[in-house]
Parts: sequence; structure tokens; C-alpha cells
Amino acid sequence: MAAPDLLYLDDLVVGQRFRSAEHGLDIGQITAFATQFDPQPFHLDPEAAAASLFGGIAASGWHTAALTMRLLVQGGLPLAGGLIGAGVEVEWPRPTRPGDVLHVESEVIDIRPSRSRPERGMVTVRSETLTAQGELVQKLIARLVVPRRPVSPDSITQA
Amino acid sequence: MAAPDLLYLDDLVVGQRFRSAEHGLDIGQITAFATQFDPQPFHLDPEAAAASLFGGIAASGWHTAALTMRLLVQGGLPLAGGLIGAGVEVEWPRPTRPGDVLHVESEVIDIRPSRSRPERGMVTVRSETLTAQGELVQKLIARLVVPRRPVSPDSITQA
Repeated sequence: MAAPDLLYLDDLVVGQRFRSAEHGLDIGQITAFATQFDPQPFHLDPEAAAASLFGGIAASGWHTAALTMRLLVQGGLPLAGGLIGAGVEVEWPRPTRPGDVLHVESEVIDIRPSRSRPERGMVTVRSETLTAQGELVQKLIARLVVPRRPVSPDSITQA
Repeated sequence: MAAPDLLYLDDLVVGQRFRSAEHGLDIGQITAFATQFDPQPFHLDPEAAAASLFGGIAASGWHTAALTMRLLVQGGLPLAGGLIGAGVEVEWPRPTRPGDVLHVESEVIDIRPSRSRPERGMVTVRSETLTAQGELVQKLIARLVVPRRPVSPDSITQA
């Protein structure tokens, strides 16, 4: 399955950067997600949202997080073995709004080979979700399990 | 809008605990969420999942997080003003599986009235998402913006 451009632990260096594709957010998506997972008035009702801390309809922070994951999975963070998070920290410095076009800029900030499991390591990545205007709507720090490149005397069977 | 049992900053104490309703997770929900937000083989393809770190189909961690939010919003954490997160830390100690019935147990672990904004404060809540068997599938630490109870000499106009 692994395409040639998927990166193993051995391929990563601190400071390495990645940029995702874009995703346009609209009111329909915001409403659908909030109805299912975060049914609060400031995500669903324009009048209630205008009177809230947000001053208008805002996407659920978990929606922004889920969209960020999609952008990372779909090429924004091309790690071999996929994106498997052990834990994350998430901040939402400002609301995500209908009409925002989001992309994610990621940077490797730490790499730790596992002592107990030589075939993998833990990589910490900071991913910033930004609007087309460069506004930071989410800051994500994720600890990811990343496999080492398989090594074999018979590399043909390990392709 | 605020029902009488919604809690303001003034009503909260460290150590206060809450328990949500339950949500049953099935393979259809896992597939629908993963297709939209986390299209990785270990969330979608039983054979690939069996061969992965997870050893079988697992829900996206972001799906577990979104379901946790729903359970908190729908009575699991009855805060006045709704649940507005400034930032969170999330860990997934074990995968969430098809058939798991989840609930959330929350505890207030810190309360800080705002110095600059006397009408609100920041409350830190630890929310554990558990299966019916008591397995911990998610640990969430959330910093939430919580309003103070409105005080007015004319309380009728402030209801």
C-alpha cells in the first residue's frame, strides 16, 4: 500500500514542514456536524450565535479538528503506517466561520525512537490550521506512532 | 434559555463530578465518520485493520472525541453558557470498537475566575470516556469558559 513518498521514522528530521490541500467550509457542513456532535446554539442558530461569545455562527472546535485530520490524512502529513495519534493538545485561538477555506501547515518538532519497540518511534508534530487569510483557527500538537523503515537482507520481499 | 439546573462558575467546586448518558457505537457510525474525516484503512477496512496496530476496526480518535462532546453537551456537563473550550488535551489509551457503549465521567479539577473579565472564569474539567465494561478509551482535559451567575439589584430583568 505504501506509496514511495510516504515517510518512515528514519526519513523525518526536526524542522521538516508539510502543507496540506485546502478545504472550504460552509454553513451546511457546520450545521450537519454540530447537529450530530455538538448541538449548541452558537453552532446552529444564527441569532443565538450573534448574541454569544462568538458573535456569529462558529464551527464546533471538534469539527475544525476533524477537518484538520482529513487534510492531514489526505496528503497533508504523508507518514508511512498512517496517522496514529497517542495523544494531542488542541487550542482554538479563534472561531472557524462559514466560508473559511482551511489548510494545515505542519512541522516535525520532536522525534524519539522507541527503546522498547525498535520497529517504531514517537514523533511530535505541530499542525496549524489556517484560513486563506492566514488566520490561525487551530493549533494542534500531536504525538504520533511512526514505524521505522523495514530493513531486510531480502529487500524484495519487504517492498 | 438557561434551565434551573445549569451551573454557573459560582456553582462549581473542585472535585464536583458529573456522569453523562450513554451512546452505543456501531460499525456504521464508525465507517461514516471515518469516511468523512479520517479515511484510513484501520478505521474502514476490517482486513487492513486486523493487520494494523489496532488489530481490528477502531473508531477514529476524533470520532470518540466528537461523541464525547455530544454526551457532554446533552446533559453530561450542565454548564450555563454552554461548553466553550479554549483548549484541550486528549489521550486515547485504547481503541474504541464497534459495539462499545460509551459514557463520560467528568470532574472539575480547577476553577479560576478571570481577572480581566469579572463576568466569567476558566474551569478545567477532566472527562473520561468509558465503555460499559469500564475500559478507558479517552481522557480529555478541557479548559472551558464559564460565566458567573448574573447579579443585578433588579433580578427580574436579569432572569
